[in-house]
Amino acid sequence: MKAILLVADGMGDRPVPQLKGQTPLEVADTINLDWLAEHGICGILDPIAPGIPPGSDTANLALLGYDATKVYRGRGALEALGAGVDIRFGDVAFRCNFATVDENLVVVDRRAGRIATEDASKLAEALQGVKSDAYPDVQIIFKNTVQHRAVLVLRGTGLSTAVTDTDPGEVGLRVKEAHPKRPTLGAKTAMIVNELLNKFHQILKEHPVNQERVKRGLPPANIILCRGAGALPEITPLASKYGIKAAAISAIPLVRGVARAAGLKLIEVPGATGSYDTDFMAKAKAAVKAIEEYDFLLLHVKATDIASHDRKIQEKIRIIEKIDKMVGYMLDNLNLDETYIAVTSDHTTALTTGKHEGDPVPVVIYGPEVRVDGVRRYNETDCARGGLCRIRAMELMPIIMNLLGKVEKFGS
Amino acid sequence: MKAILLVADGMGDRPVPQLKGQTPLEVADTINLDWLAEHGICGILDPIAPGIPPGSDTANLALLGYDATKVYRGRGALEALGAGVDIRFGDVAFRCNFATVDENLVVVDRRAGRIATEDASKLAEALQGVKSDAYPDVQIIFKNTVQHRAVLVLRGTGLSTAVTDTDPGEVGLRVKEAHPKRPTLGAKTAMIVNELLNKFHQILKEHPVNQERVKRGLPPANIILCRGAGALPEITPLASKYGIKAAAISAIPLVRGVARAAGLKLIEVPGATGSYDTDFMAKAKAAVKAIEEYDFLLLHVKATDIASHDRKIQEKIRIIEKIDKMVGYMLDNLNLDETYIAVTSDHTTALTTGKHEGDPVPVVIYGPEVRVDGVRRYNETDCARGGLCRIRAMELMPIIMNLLGKVEKFGS
Repeated sequence: MKAILLVADGMGDRPVPQLKGQTPLEVADTINLDWLAEHGICGILDPIAPGIPPGSDTANLALLGYDATKVYRGRGALEALGAGVDIRFGDVAFRCNFATVDENLVVVDRRAGRIATEDASKLAEALQGVKSDAYPDVQIIFKNTVQHRAVLVLRGTGLSTAVTDTDPGEVGLRVKEAHPKRPTLGAKTAMIVNELLNKFHQILKEHPVNQERVKRGLPPANIILCRGAGALPEITPLASKYGIKAAAISAIPLVRGVARAAGLKLIEVPGATGSYDTDFMAKAKAAVKAIEEYDFLLLHVKATDIASHDRKIQEKIRIIEKIDKMVGYMLDNLNLDETYIAVTSDHTTALTTGKHEGDPVPVVIYGPEVRVDGVRRYNETDCARGGLCRIRAMELMPIIMNLLGKVEKFGS
Repeated sequence: MKAILLVADGMGDRPVPQLKGQTPLEVADTINLDWLAEHGICGILDPIAPGIPPGSDTANLALLGYDATKVYRGRGALEALGAGVDIRFGDVAFRCNFATVDENLVVVDRRAGRIATEDASKLAEALQGVKSDAYPDVQIIFKNTVQHRAVLVLRGTGLSTAVTDTDPGEVGLRVKEAHPKRPTLGAKTAMIVNELLNKFHQILKEHPVNQERVKRGLPPANIILCRGAGALPEITPLASKYGIKAAAISAIPLVRGVARAAGLKLIEVPGATGSYDTDFMAKAKAAVKAIEEYDFLLLHVKATDIASHDRKIQEKIRIIEKIDKMVGYMLDNLNLDETYIAVTSDHTTALTTGKHEGDPVPVVIYGPEVRVDGVRRYNETDCARGGLCRIRAMELMPIIMNLLGKVEKFGS
């Protein structure tokens, strides 16, 4: 027995006035998702707890069966792990942006005009080898990923995640200094961050790539903003926990990082972009192929979340319909006698607010031994009447693993 | 106000292909259980947590309102308690089997041909008075129960449950030595166990009962296998917790042990065997009689679980129908103005797998002040739409005790 868990990022939603009070899932043509609902067991799922809006990191940790409220130690390390840095216990890592500031260090563009990855790579190269003068023994790893995104990793003794962000979070504000969050804890780390960011700024503002950008009327990527200091969560890999071979498909560094932290093998899918233009069907095909070799696959799709953040109602509906076709492909091509398919979201991202919200999300599990419950449509309201009732995200993995016969008995 | 909690062991199930995807509860003729559902409040109940397959010990601890994940300390002590040994805090107890080994200590029959209780009793008598030479101050209690079943209790200082089983769990494997589970913890206990089992083996293999068995072509009960080292859970008796008089009816030592650990008075029912041939109606009658004297009664029926372990589909349906008749008898003979009746299982035992599974089980509470919820059938799927929604087993007892007015207000 095997299982695919399809996670549509931010697919859950609230009633949308422009949709006559319906949610995108209620409006979209989802013949395959509805088929799963009709022949599976449905429910709603709180990513963390009722009313708590989760991040993608905490929600995906929970969906993989971990208690995020206990193990989560910040975004940075997961992002770095997802970016391919072999981060270690003790490292402190940050999510970074290439950004644009004026001469007073006021942020003009938090993404340096969504700088092309090629330009960012050249700039990142110039930052290699920069050290802290105060703590030259601390190893510095700086790596750009896609467009303006990058990670900074500090490796050494006495580091702490208890430091504030230097990213002010919006334009028009001055870049912040990193501060320790507690009197002593984080002081060394904050000092190193401030020193490095200052050195980075000096290098970036003089860099030919930026001089060229200014000439072309583009915002120069003249500063690095840091946020989300994080360390690796200390979690048991899924493989050891359940004795399974597990893999993940995702184009998003943060989700890839969560998957790596849980010991999942990352499967690369050409055409998967983590955005609107991703090749949905390529991911479905890769999933069908992967499950031949693995017992469990996390199949993550990002675009639903982006559509909600961008408040694009029709776009979100269209993406849901593309996800429905992915499900159709899987139903046509999987051996359904030995494969469970679960579909859920990592959180609600509301079109009305453009933000992650704490509302629960629909979930369905389809497969040989589930108790079919009479729900006929896959959406927020119908699934709430399903046989799973209301569960927590961290309970979904034990439920799936139990169907696979992989959970040890507690007691005798 | 009083309450009877009827626990049908392993009655919850998954869809069975031979039953056209229905569960035994859905197929069985359960007019009385359905009447309870229609006039009561229904729900589903996770014995421990979603997806976690429980043992009978942990599940029944939970059904009596205890957090098994915190208080459970192994099977052995509960089994010994259920066998009538007055076990104390500090004692370490094991569930034992009379078994058959060859000259190389390879297990040939884990139950010595399900040796008759009479034979086992004679053999057990020969083991009385055996001491550890290394620790002669440690008191040894060995008691056989039904057929091949027995318990071994060690009483003394410095004992620990952190020892491994000597029972290899299947035939064809050599008897194991007991080992400490942690470097120092358990070393003394393991040494005593190994010494005793060796002495037992020497006595048993020469014993006339076994020589006679060999002559009759029966497997000699020439060794004692130990498993499930356990100590008493430190729990508050139900009587003190809720100020009630509580009793239990069960023929199963492990469940009897859980009941005794919770301070319940055991009521003996002639004809109750803990197997297919139990006198169901005698138990129902005894329950009706007992509730005159007690505020709360745990009424446990084992046979549903056995049918699932044996994968006997029609047998399980028949047993469910017998349990339904027990409910009918209780409905006819109880004073329903002052008695609540709750029915649930301690866990799902799936006919498809023959094992305890982590799926939730249906639960109904019928009585004067419950909120009737529109569910009309007592089974896994219908109950999931009930007014109790999805609860944990350890929450059921407070819910029942609250209906009895026995739960203290928290706060002011």
